[in-house]
Amino acid sequence: MWQLHQFPLCPFSRKLRLLMGEKGVSYELKRENPWEESDELWALNPAGRTPVLHDPDKNLTLCDSRAICEYLEETVERSPMINGTAVGRAEIRRLVALFDENFYADVTAPLLQERMRKRLVLREPPDSRVLRQAMKNAHAHLDYIDWLIDNRAWVAGATMSLADLAAAAQISVADYLGGIDWKDHGPTQRWYSVFKSRPSFRPMLSEKMEGIHPPAHYAKVDI
Amino acid sequence: MWQLHQFPLCPFSRKLRLLMGEKGVSYELKRENPWEESDELWALNPAGRTPVLHDPDKNLTLCDSRAICEYLEETVERSPMINGTAVGRAEIRRLVALFDENFYADVTAPLLQERMRKRLVLREPPDSRVLRQAMKNAHAHLDYIDWLIDNRAWVAGATMSLADLAAAAQISVADYLGGIDWKDHGPTQRWYSVFKSRPSFRPMLSEKMEGIHPPAHYAKVDI
Repeated sequence: MWQLHQFPLCPFSRKLRLLMGEKGVSYELKRENPWEESDELWALNPAGRTPVLHDPDKNLTLCDSRAICEYLEETVERSPMINGTAVGRAEIRRLVALFDENFYADVTAPLLQERMRKRLVLREPPDSRVLRQAMKNAHAHLDYIDWLIDNRAWVAGATMSLADLAAAAQISVADYLGGIDWKDHGPTQRWYSVFKSRPSFRPMLSEKMEGIHPPAHYAKVDI
Repeated sequence: MWQLHQFPLCPFSRKLRLLMGEKGVSYELKRENPWEESDELWALNPAGRTPVLHDPDKNLTLCDSRAICEYLEETVERSPMINGTAVGRAEIRRLVALFDENFYADVTAPLLQERMRKRLVLREPPDSRVLRQAMKNAHAHLDYIDWLIDNRAWVAGATMSLADLAAAAQISVADYLGGIDWKDHGPTQRWYSVFKSRPSFRPMLSEKMEGIHPPAHYAKVDI
């Protein structure tokens, strides 16, 4: 069976778990703490990052969340998530990159630094200026997602795609860390609420990162 | 015809130019200065970044260098660069991510900040501590590339792939900015030297970024 090396608040691991859930690919979780930089993780992935998808029986190791998503897309027929014309697929991949790189750098990464790493590792108080900026950035990103969803059925087009999974993964971690103010983002909120009720999403919503509590609305599917 | 929005020291634009060169896809260059954050670039790409590949006649805009590379791979048959089995393709994509994300963050980005942005925009001297660390990081990355090339014909396997283009693009920008010490990296140096003589690479080697001069060895193909 696949072993997924991850930690509960890794947005890239969450994207992969959503994809594997949608495709019905089973796996077991192998917990990593990113700040420990474990020898096992570095031996599996020269980039020293989660997620890593490893099959010890087949001696197969896959690294980089986008490379792993493409691999699953190529090898598992069920629920295609990078689908359509070449232009449509380019749009899906553009948005995956926007959420993986820009949303992550602007919102998720500073929240993880201030509200996870500082609390659990550095034992420092969060920098409120950095938090305010991250929430302001989140607001701008949600404005863009509102606009996408006002103009399309799903984030990248007429059907659900990897772009929706990538967006939901980043938003879910930011929401866990109290970085999302849902006010004024009705379209994204409705889209996200539908997402939260999917069987691929439910297991993640009940998981906790030790020592960090999500806000009350986090796991509720109706808001 | 395609218009490629780029600037001469953008490593992601260089990767794309190498791919388009290998595939024989013609394009014209549209110059962007990343620090100017032009309205035209933001209108084309909500991530505000180069490269953007734009065809005004077809009203088609493609953003994100990896999404564009996948698009070209899907639509242009010549010189496949993400080829082979699903596992082989995952290895190519893993290495592209390693060069695009880790090499860039560890080496190319700090060099661009210290030796391009500070010289041309901020008018500040470079921070020698940051430069030393970037060169140390480059050394570690080249060690890994040495190891890859000692064990394979090309970076990702038996044939040239997008991983070679991604590595050469990052290295070429770092080399232009004086960040590569080639001593002790014979395998990578020989691989890179072969690369520099390819028709897809030659046009870039003669281009200059105004106000920044590359070291004497930069454009020579025999070292």
